[in-house]
Amino acid sequence: MRNLTLLTDFYELTMMYGYFNLGKTEEIATFDLFFRPFEESNFCIAAGLEQAIDYVENLHFDEDDIEYLRSTHSFSEQFLDYLRDFRFTGNIRAVPEGTVVFPYEPLLIVTAPICQAQLVEAAILNIINHQTLIATKARRVCYAASPASVLEFGLRRAQGPDAAIYGARAAVIGGCSSTSNVLCAQMFGLPPKGTHAHSWVMSFPTELDAFKAYADTYPDNCLLLVDTYDTLGSGVPNAIKTFDYLKAKGYKPVGIRLDSGDLAYLSKEARKMLDAAGHDDCKIFASSDIDEYVLESLKQQGAKIDIFGVGTKLITSNNTPSLGGVYKLSNLSVCGADYPKMKISDNPVKMTNPGVKTVFRLFDKGTNKAIADVIALADEVIDDSRPLTITDPTERWKSKTVTNFYAKELYVEAVAQGKRVLPRKDVYELQRDCRDSLDGFWEEYKRLSKPHSYKVDLSDKLYSLKERLIQEERQTVAK
Amino acid sequence: MRNLTLLTDFYELTMMYGYFNLGKTEEIATFDLFFRPFEESNFCIAAGLEQAIDYVENLHFDEDDIEYLRSTHSFSEQFLDYLRDFRFTGNIRAVPEGTVVFPYEPLLIVTAPICQAQLVEAAILNIINHQTLIATKARRVCYAASPASVLEFGLRRAQGPDAAIYGARAAVIGGCSSTSNVLCAQMFGLPPKGTHAHSWVMSFPTELDAFKAYADTYPDNCLLLVDTYDTLGSGVPNAIKTFDYLKAKGYKPVGIRLDSGDLAYLSKEARKMLDAAGHDDCKIFASSDIDEYVLESLKQQGAKIDIFGVGTKLITSNNTPSLGGVYKLSNLSVCGADYPKMKISDNPVKMTNPGVKTVFRLFDKGTNKAIADVIALADEVIDDSRPLTITDPTERWKSKTVTNFYAKELYVEAVAQGKRVLPRKDVYELQRDCRDSLDGFWEEYKRLSKPHSYKVDLSDKLYSLKERLIQEERQTVAK
Repeated sequence: MRNLTLLTDFYELTMMYGYFNLGKTEEIATFDLFFRPFEESNFCIAAGLEQAIDYVENLHFDEDDIEYLRSTHSFSEQFLDYLRDFRFTGNIRAVPEGTVVFPYEPLLIVTAPICQAQLVEAAILNIINHQTLIATKARRVCYAASPASVLEFGLRRAQGPDAAIYGARAAVIGGCSSTSNVLCAQMFGLPPKGTHAHSWVMSFPTELDAFKAYADTYPDNCLLLVDTYDTLGSGVPNAIKTFDYLKAKGYKPVGIRLDSGDLAYLSKEARKMLDAAGHDDCKIFASSDIDEYVLESLKQQGAKIDIFGVGTKLITSNNTPSLGGVYKLSNLSVCGADYPKMKISDNPVKMTNPGVKTVFRLFDKGTNKAIADVIALADEVIDDSRPLTITDPTERWKSKTVTNFYAKELYVEAVAQGKRVLPRKDVYELQRDCRDSLDGFWEEYKRLSKPHSYKVDLSDKLYSLKERLIQEERQTVAK
Repeated sequence: MRNLTLLTDFYELTMMYGYFNLGKTEEIATFDLFFRPFEESNFCIAAGLEQAIDYVENLHFDEDDIEYLRSTHSFSEQFLDYLRDFRFTGNIRAVPEGTVVFPYEPLLIVTAPICQAQLVEAAILNIINHQTLIATKARRVCYAASPASVLEFGLRRAQGPDAAIYGARAAVIGGCSSTSNVLCAQMFGLPPKGTHAHSWVMSFPTELDAFKAYADTYPDNCLLLVDTYDTLGSGVPNAIKTFDYLKAKGYKPVGIRLDSGDLAYLSKEARKMLDAAGHDDCKIFASSDIDEYVLESLKQQGAKIDIFGVGTKLITSNNTPSLGGVYKLSNLSVCGADYPKMKISDNPVKMTNPGVKTVFRLFDKGTNKAIADVIALADEVIDDSRPLTITDPTERWKSKTVTNFYAKELYVEAVAQGKRVLPRKDVYELQRDCRDSLDGFWEEYKRLSKPHSYKVDLSDKLYSLKERLIQEERQTVAK
């Protein structure tokens, strides 16, 4: 496993050094990883926890790392010695991968001695921000493509190898049926997908020669790319000739792929040509600069496409290529006493929620659909046998009384005392978990444009704590 | 070194299998890696070559890879045997990192037996597209910030670990002075940068306690983040108290960092407060959602900022998070005979340039500024002792006669017979190369909004070859 211990911002190390010098290494900090309202989507699909756990389990400074840090002339020998035996010994509670999660709800809650909790900030944010971003985009793309399926095709445009590998993993969690990326497929047990490129066709004297050669290579898995020269003028007719040839030999051809031009028009025309030639069981694949909006438009135009290959715009989350997840101190525990912490700001969007928390999702007993989420303090219990009044976190006059519901807590224990306790899951299992989590929501929350806003409220206890801390802070600043 | 051999699209392997079965493994293919007009910038800064060379040098299928490919039931044992000894034995000519490069100019030209040239497509595109994208964005950001310097701060929002590491490398090539990313700094010999976060301040009873503690930890490198509670109301006054305390002990404080709020207003007010307190040598750092447009606006408003930390929008190239580099077959050499290849399309933007090529940059002898680039066939020589007429690649009536010029070829040999021949360079050397390359262009080409369009023409010989191939293809399709 790659040693990513130095994959951190330098200030994490300078702060650790400060805490070390001040004898604060025994203070236990709790940090919440959460995102604020995200312009691309009203909710996200949690992803990346598996790799975040691998990262903290493997955390250690090897001799090269220590030597390197010495060379920066920023740390004492005592501190470098301390790093030599440094391990992550804390706990992580997390929303499982594939779960629908809303702004301000912590995806991960890290509780550990302050130096450890601080060191892991940047890498955990990197991993979770990235995969959650792509799983969320994949959910949108697959939603728009449905019932057609979506293959992830973005390796060549991803932002580096990891973006391709872990982005494809996240895309499958979010709903893609598989990927063209062989390394990702190998690492996560997915069937790799793909056939041939334009260069295959160009390397033969004629398109028909190229198609026949491909058919001879993969007679029982023959999918032909038909747009190298002229899609309807030569590509589809040559594909039909090739399919006739394969059928005569007893094989069942798979279909054609369109990779340029007007996909709505070309797919409808190609469908007619294939059907007329008796190849109505051949599928039409399409790729070429597709995102969820193109998919909605293709559906509206009645395009005849069975499977989409989606590359660039999925693997980079083209419209919004970053999820602004943050990692904020919510509690400090010193000699057994808890000090809830929050960031105060003139901008209410930037305020954080103090204390060690949890989140409940409330479901209607009749429909099994989600009604609202409640962010609460970790020691709170929701009694679902009686009506519950929940209140908007900023607009106190907006409240709602919920009856006939049951409450599910969103978190699982991921890491305990530095060790993984969450069993590994297959990526397709996570995909099913994602589908189940999505099934818990009405369509009104899931549509792509202007979805209905879902309530994420604070418990009364958390609300009161927040108010108290704001008052205290104001008094301190006034002094 | 990580084995990235399977970091490829599955179709590269199915095509290789096809070429293998057809006995075509001795055919020598040339592929050009180039980008088409890129909406974010009229030119790009080439980057990523170093990692692309590492990748091809290290290319090999280990036993796990072979076993994995066997499990896909897509390849014969003969082919898997062939992969066992598979190495990259071809040549790569490339535009050196840090060079200004324009649409359609090949960044890399790969010439190798067809299976090898095909296999490397996806990973090379991934590496070059990513780093070139970020170096290009960094050039824009640094141009707008100048004379202030820019630090790369994007680890937590990058699309995975590699995006952070290699993105930061590319950002330095494009002009950033350094990065906060310690692993990147270690790998590429950069000074890692950073001080403390809001969580440091929040973990102390008061802001002043936090500042003093930090000052005691780093008395000779004290930079304080002043916006945790109230920038002008408490942050800057507490920083001034801390700086007074440091000065009294004989140290020279570094400055303050602003990370939220209106950076123009806050920086001007903070500057006044620092100056009035006798700390006019203290610098002001700023971060918070900065890109080249914010930088231009801050400059216009007279913001007093010395150094910028730029994160999310640089490391993801926020507005355009992918460079659409492609990898197209341009020549096939069979038994010593060359067959120039091109992709024909109704869309002239999608047409490719056939043949094994090179690019000349023409400079004016008087000013040493670039006049135009000429894409030519590799065996062409430009005689700069006589006037040269160059012609627009699509609009034949647009031509220009150049005199008093000298021509420089853009390429270096990067890989010969599978081995690196280009010496490794320090990242700051590449940054200097980038500055030199940019110095060769008038400001009119470098401004951020609506830059003057730079001529990239075809040589007459290449133009004629292209016309001939289009004619031939039309005749073939007509038949």
